[in-house]
Amino acid sequence: MIIKHIAFAGLGLIGGSLALSFAEKGIKLTAYDKDQDTLADAVSTGLFEHVTDDLDTLLSLDFDMLYICLPVKTACVFAAELGKKGFKKPVTDAGSTKTDITEAAEKAGLIFCGGHPIAGKELSGFENAKAGLFNGAYHILTPTCPGFDIEPFIEIHEAIGMKVKVMDHKKHDLTFGLVSHLPHITAFSMVQTVSAVDIDALEYTGAGFKDFSRIAASDPRMWTEIFLDNNKNMVTLIDSYIAEMQRWKKAIVESDEKEIFEMIEHAATIRRTLS
Amino acid sequence: MIIKHIAFAGLGLIGGSLALSFAEKGIKLTAYDKDQDTLADAVSTGLFEHVTDDLDTLLSLDFDMLYICLPVKTACVFAAELGKKGFKKPVTDAGSTKTDITEAAEKAGLIFCGGHPIAGKELSGFENAKAGLFNGAYHILTPTCPGFDIEPFIEIHEAIGMKVKVMDHKKHDLTFGLVSHLPHITAFSMVQTVSAVDIDALEYTGAGFKDFSRIAASDPRMWTEIFLDNNKNMVTLIDSYIAEMQRWKKAIVESDEKEIFEMIEHAATIRRTLS
Repeated sequence: MIIKHIAFAGLGLIGGSLALSFAEKGIKLTAYDKDQDTLADAVSTGLFEHVTDDLDTLLSLDFDMLYICLPVKTACVFAAELGKKGFKKPVTDAGSTKTDITEAAEKAGLIFCGGHPIAGKELSGFENAKAGLFNGAYHILTPTCPGFDIEPFIEIHEAIGMKVKVMDHKKHDLTFGLVSHLPHITAFSMVQTVSAVDIDALEYTGAGFKDFSRIAASDPRMWTEIFLDNNKNMVTLIDSYIAEMQRWKKAIVESDEKEIFEMIEHAATIRRTLS
Repeated sequence: MIIKHIAFAGLGLIGGSLALSFAEKGIKLTAYDKDQDTLADAVSTGLFEHVTDDLDTLLSLDFDMLYICLPVKTACVFAAELGKKGFKKPVTDAGSTKTDITEAAEKAGLIFCGGHPIAGKELSGFENAKAGLFNGAYHILTPTCPGFDIEPFIEIHEAIGMKVKVMDHKKHDLTFGLVSHLPHITAFSMVQTVSAVDIDALEYTGAGFKDFSRIAASDPRMWTEIFLDNNKNMVTLIDSYIAEMQRWKKAIVESDEKEIFEMIEHAATIRRTLS
């Protein structure tokens, strides 16, 4: 496979930023999106060969691979549609969880490799997309289909400055459940606890609380979907986390100074290894 | 009471910064500390009338009030010593919890008002002390003793730029248990969970995790003491927090999309009210 022309299904912040980044490397672009304003914005960049809101039109075009950049649930439905139409070009995606889309693509008989570009997503929409958004970021690939030629696919992501890592798709969902999804739940729960115990105490929050709870201001729609997609891991991880909180409770109930000191020292030592 | 001369017992970051701030307002200073280097550093500033490591010498000196800036446990022992010596000048302190020191001071028969200057304490020691550290910060006062003349005491803290709030000492410990101590435990627990489940996942932490877990790098000695001092509140608050995590677990187990969305929206709306 030589990748000269990529079609994007879904041209939001992620799809748009990938497209603009690939354009800088001379790759041709096509866009499929249901939003007419987004298609008009895409046309106005002058960077797209074709734009369309019609799936059959899209599939009749001459591109090398299809990059699904839709929310995970929508992406799964879209994969099933591609399967029904007997689509046989390589397909990838950019969702935050990998198990559901991998299973949907497999069921649809697609030549598929899951992907997850890791970057801040505080904004959304093609109007906020920019080339270079993923420069220096990880791109996690979760290949499962032997028919998908992974090497040229790795190369184009490295060409736009990404660090590519290959990972099992179940491992991916546990890893990001642990370091991304669970911290969000713990931050939401912390804000909920303040709300339940004494909302007026918010007046006395300092820089520590503000840093700690920043991720609690995240987008409800996107995060609801992530928690539902990654639900099995989230239940296990919440249990692991509650077990650690119970260790804290026990140590404090018993005034176990040594245990409390060691737990803090352990956590602080690990945290200090991060920049 | 006119406050012209303050003696500090314990000249670390907090005591030192308060002393240097008050000096700028023309208040005379005396320092009592067991550390000879600290006393030498105090002398070298040229701002102290007297420095001593001997309690009887300290108590024989002519100052208007005594500001205890020792860790809470040490402060409680020190208050008992002052009681034994029949000390009757006004006494305050600067500890992070207020119930234990208030009870110790009451038992010792001191003319006491608890205080808590709220400021970042990432550094420690007189060598890091600076005038202006508390400019713009809250100073929480928890008066309990009718013999303590609170007005001039409020004035001198306002003179160094602090916003003074009067609060019941038990309410203080619950409030700061909620917005400061509990977030530390939840951040420590998060790092512990990563360590227990998959330490290698740390490689994939992004800006969100780093903000969230920054407070997990805190000083073990200081925080062990805070959790032990505020142990009754911490047990109640950990229970409240675990209840919120259980709500999350239930909603995810039941794939309750509406409940998940509403929990995130509720937390995000509250978090967005903070800067």
